[in-house]
Amino acid sequence: MKTKTKQISFKEELFLESGRMLSPVTVAYETYGTLNEAKTNAILICHALTGSANAAGTYSKDDENQNVGWWNDMIGAGKAFDTDKFYVISSNILGSCYGSTGPASIDPFTGKHYGRKFPVVTVKDMIKAQKRLLDYLGISKLYAAAGGSLGGMQVLEWAVTYPEMVERIIPISTSGRITPMAIAFNTIARIAITKDPNYNNGDYYGRTAPKDGLAIGRMAGHITYLSDVAFHKKFGRRYATFEGIYDFGGFFEVENYLRHNGYKFTERFDANAYLYLLKAMDIFDLTYGYSSYTEAVSRISARTLFITFDSDFLFPPYQTEELVKIMTEAGNKPEWVQLHSDFGHDAFLLEFDSQTAEIKRFLAN
Amino acid sequence: MKTKTKQISFKEELFLESGRMLSPVTVAYETYGTLNEAKTNAILICHALTGSANAAGTYSKDDENQNVGWWNDMIGAGKAFDTDKFYVISSNILGSCYGSTGPASIDPFTGKHYGRKFPVVTVKDMIKAQKRLLDYLGISKLYAAAGGSLGGMQVLEWAVTYPEMVERIIPISTSGRITPMAIAFNTIARIAITKDPNYNNGDYYGRTAPKDGLAIGRMAGHITYLSDVAFHKKFGRRYATFEGIYDFGGFFEVENYLRHNGYKFTERFDANAYLYLLKAMDIFDLTYGYSSYTEAVSRISARTLFITFDSDFLFPPYQTEELVKIMTEAGNKPEWVQLHSDFGHDAFLLEFDSQTAEIKRFLAN
Repeated sequence: MKTKTKQISFKEELFLESGRMLSPVTVAYETYGTLNEAKTNAILICHALTGSANAAGTYSKDDENQNVGWWNDMIGAGKAFDTDKFYVISSNILGSCYGSTGPASIDPFTGKHYGRKFPVVTVKDMIKAQKRLLDYLGISKLYAAAGGSLGGMQVLEWAVTYPEMVERIIPISTSGRITPMAIAFNTIARIAITKDPNYNNGDYYGRTAPKDGLAIGRMAGHITYLSDVAFHKKFGRRYATFEGIYDFGGFFEVENYLRHNGYKFTERFDANAYLYLLKAMDIFDLTYGYSSYTEAVSRISARTLFITFDSDFLFPPYQTEELVKIMTEAGNKPEWVQLHSDFGHDAFLLEFDSQTAEIKRFLAN
Repeated sequence: MKTKTKQISFKEELFLESGRMLSPVTVAYETYGTLNEAKTNAILICHALTGSANAAGTYSKDDENQNVGWWNDMIGAGKAFDTDKFYVISSNILGSCYGSTGPASIDPFTGKHYGRKFPVVTVKDMIKAQKRLLDYLGISKLYAAAGGSLGGMQVLEWAVTYPEMVERIIPISTSGRITPMAIAFNTIARIAITKDPNYNNGDYYGRTAPKDGLAIGRMAGHITYLSDVAFHKKFGRRYATFEGIYDFGGFFEVENYLRHNGYKFTERFDANAYLYLLKAMDIFDLTYGYSSYTEAVSRISARTLFITFDSDFLFPPYQTEELVKIMTEAGNKPEWVQLHSDFGHDAFLLEFDSQTAEIKRFLAN
């Protein structure tokens, strides 16, 4: 399946949760499958922290260096999100750097990159931008919304903010508010990036980017995406270098992996976008705008399938247990499937078979 | 109890595991209680990563700014390590910056700080330096050796390398080799420090120290010293600043804590020492010099009391379970007590009552 990322720009101001405004708001998106005449078969896929609209298929712009969508094993003909039946929509989130408006975009008032002048955006702001895309596509109701991690937060926010618009939700490896430990990991990234001399208070476009800080931040993230078991299985205590074990500069395979992936990440992601998305993640709390977490979560009327993985320590399953409890007491009948995996938080991007079985069953009803 | 750190220098070269030599070797130490005539009541206390010889009492050099020993609640008259009965010895480890020879010491060949010219030192090298101190004090056998974390590694190394010299060991919250996940956390520190422009390849003495890098490294460490439950109890999702929740510069209490303690740490610790001690921790593996982990661990003949805490994810209790299994199969009868605590790895520095009960009972036999 070849795909192409499209962009749509909305001139009308988007009023952000912070009270600030953003205009224009560009949303990058892809669609897979066909919208039926009644427009009742649309499924919105929400991506995680550093994902893009390219959720499925092969990116057609760059055939030689074929990028495969981040959930390509889940979206397509006969797959979990079956494009023979459903019209699947995937959009890049507000604040990101893959085509939607973010800090690396040009501020129309200055003609320069927003940088740190970009307003703080929230998960609610992200879904408001997604709603504009749905309005543009003529879709007033979603058959389902699904996503993992920060994507799952968007899914929950959809069900709380626009309960009448989402018939089904599949929040995976997520939570209605992240743990203080998760904020602690984001803190490492925040300080590493902002203290990198090349960060220059966010004004580094056209100059050397703060690669060391961003790489360190990404490495801290990578630790949280894995699990203790995954570290043992993936790396053990194998030594990576030809330097001796007693050489100051030698390192283990795990360090090699973190270094390599940390710096590789800096080639594809903008440091400011990373900071703004971490911020959105930290301050996300379904409670905002309501009198309690319970009141907010109780608004969810969508049929719900929660998926968690037992080794996920970034979004511990007890957070989903809490959501299930609140929803059940409010009269909803959410399903919750806890799957086994050694992959930790990353499991939703790797464990396809077990997720597919659950999602197919859930979407068939 | 007032204490004073003493120093003893040994001119004779210390042959390091790496094949390199170090001379002179200075060891900073403190003693509490009285050595009996038969010299049979000596207990060696081994400190963790950033500890010092000042394990107990009030540091007499600085009465106005009273530093209290890091295990003051455990060492003293009537305490777990009862100074009415025992002669307690605590020394600063090789490679540290609290009085023993380390990278911040002056290299006698150049008259300058060693910096990165300092050789990589191992846990075995550390205990060899401690052995010199014991020889100097006239002690040929220890009633016991005890310590947590990197201190526990030294205790295990003592029992494997000099089985005839240690009658009892109390390794706490430790392991015979750290997990790849622990190495991953150390990687964050290593890269943050060495990429700090002020690091200058370790040659920063008399200039600006790499404070940002060291602070970031310490913050990564702090995450591992706590536990998910501790993060919830200590910080929750409380917001710390007067800035609004939508302000880019605002932060949660957990971030405030990490920032504050990360930078505070840079006032008391040397970045090179931190790097060398992390290295010693990473490459520590009881197996070195033997044909297997089992062979090495089976050498332990000391009576052993292992203590672990259930919420410790840096040194997971399953590592102690493995040690207990090997020792038991080798005919030793180690005791292992798993204590409950929400404090995670830090518990051995905080949970005094439960540890005291176990240690008193064990030392009485």
